[in-house]
Amino acid sequence: MKLFDGGRAPNPRRVRVFLAEKGIEVPLVPVDMGALEHKQQAVSSRNPLQRLPVLELDDGTIITESVAICRYFEELYPEPPLFGQGALGKAKVAMWQRRIELNLLSSVAQAFRHIHPAMKEWEVPQVPEWGEANKPKAIEFLKLLDAELAQREFAAGDSYSIADITGLIAIDFMKPARIRVPEECTNVLRWHAAISSRPSAAA
Amino acid sequence: MKLFDGGRAPNPRRVRVFLAEKGIEVPLVPVDMGALEHKQQAVSSRNPLQRLPVLELDDGTIITESVAICRYFEELYPEPPLFGQGALGKAKVAMWQRRIELNLLSSVAQAFRHIHPAMKEWEVPQVPEWGEANKPKAIEFLKLLDAELAQREFAAGDSYSIADITGLIAIDFMKPARIRVPEECTNVLRWHAAISSRPSAAA
Repeated sequence: MKLFDGGRAPNPRRVRVFLAEKGIEVPLVPVDMGALEHKQQAVSSRNPLQRLPVLELDDGTIITESVAICRYFEELYPEPPLFGQGALGKAKVAMWQRRIELNLLSSVAQAFRHIHPAMKEWEVPQVPEWGEANKPKAIEFLKLLDAELAQREFAAGDSYSIADITGLIAIDFMKPARIRVPEECTNVLRWHAAISSRPSAAA
Repeated sequence: MKLFDGGRAPNPRRVRVFLAEKGIEVPLVPVDMGALEHKQQAVSSRNPLQRLPVLELDDGTIITESVAICRYFEELYPEPPLFGQGALGKAKVAMWQRRIELNLLSSVAQAFRHIHPAMKEWEVPQVPEWGEANKPKAIEFLKLLDAELAQREFAAGDSYSIADITGLIAIDFMKPARIRVPEECTNVLRWHAAISSRPSAAA
């Protein structure tokens, strides 16, 4: 088994943090996304979408999409559960993982890809107006999340889950996207500090 | 239990098709999205994101996000399995569900929301250039999917799954978004015809 990894990019990091929380070690194949190596043969032949991460099993089976790779390891190594427990617990993790992904991570990614000069070759055409339109979407969602985090420790309940990992990578991705967590979102800031201090955050 | 439903919109339909495949009946509360009823109190108080569908359990617990609602019912009623079986089967369904959602459904939705005049109050600001940029993204993904569907019956393997449901709602959503499946995508057309002929597609 080997994991084609993309360094600082959010989705490769999501899988590395997940694996660190599970205590699983998978051999990494580093791919230099800054040098556009993910558009070359090694990745393209495994994932025609030319995106990372890509997991290759020993028999050559390919799994792409960060959350699908996490799901694979969750099923093989259920402890600690990072996709929730019980029907309602699993639904709540799915709900918050998606809410954070579709409203925060996606908005931050759109702002970054459509505004940052380094993304000119990645996002064609760049539409700066669309990038700017995403900044208030991200802020609006952070305020909603702040009200939720006033009531509980983690994004989806009292246990750490993949929803928190998606939150971690989304908020850390705000820095290159030049968006700041509003100072009044004290619960988001407390939560982000807590999940950042876990050893997995360094993965 | 009751499900606040949004009629023709893709995400409410995803849950209805899923429930029909499972043979589960849940009382529906119709919400007229055309009249912007989802921005009123009944929905807003349950989902501050003002989106549908919303599932309310008998104790008042709220589950939002169509895939999270489907996950809840999958856990309660595992047969027939619509999120895959075994670690690899579940990972493949997650992978294709996400690939279709993020590359096809999302692109079609962006094209619709940023170009269609009826969406002016929904998507602020509308950025027509971004809407247009999404049309080739949808077509490019359909070509990739076509090559995959040449090798198997359903999106994620030999069994029908939530990945097919997401494909169904995405392709049907192409009509109002004014995008057509290219004629040469014969495998996509065969697959879409097959999943459209299942009784669940009428849900």
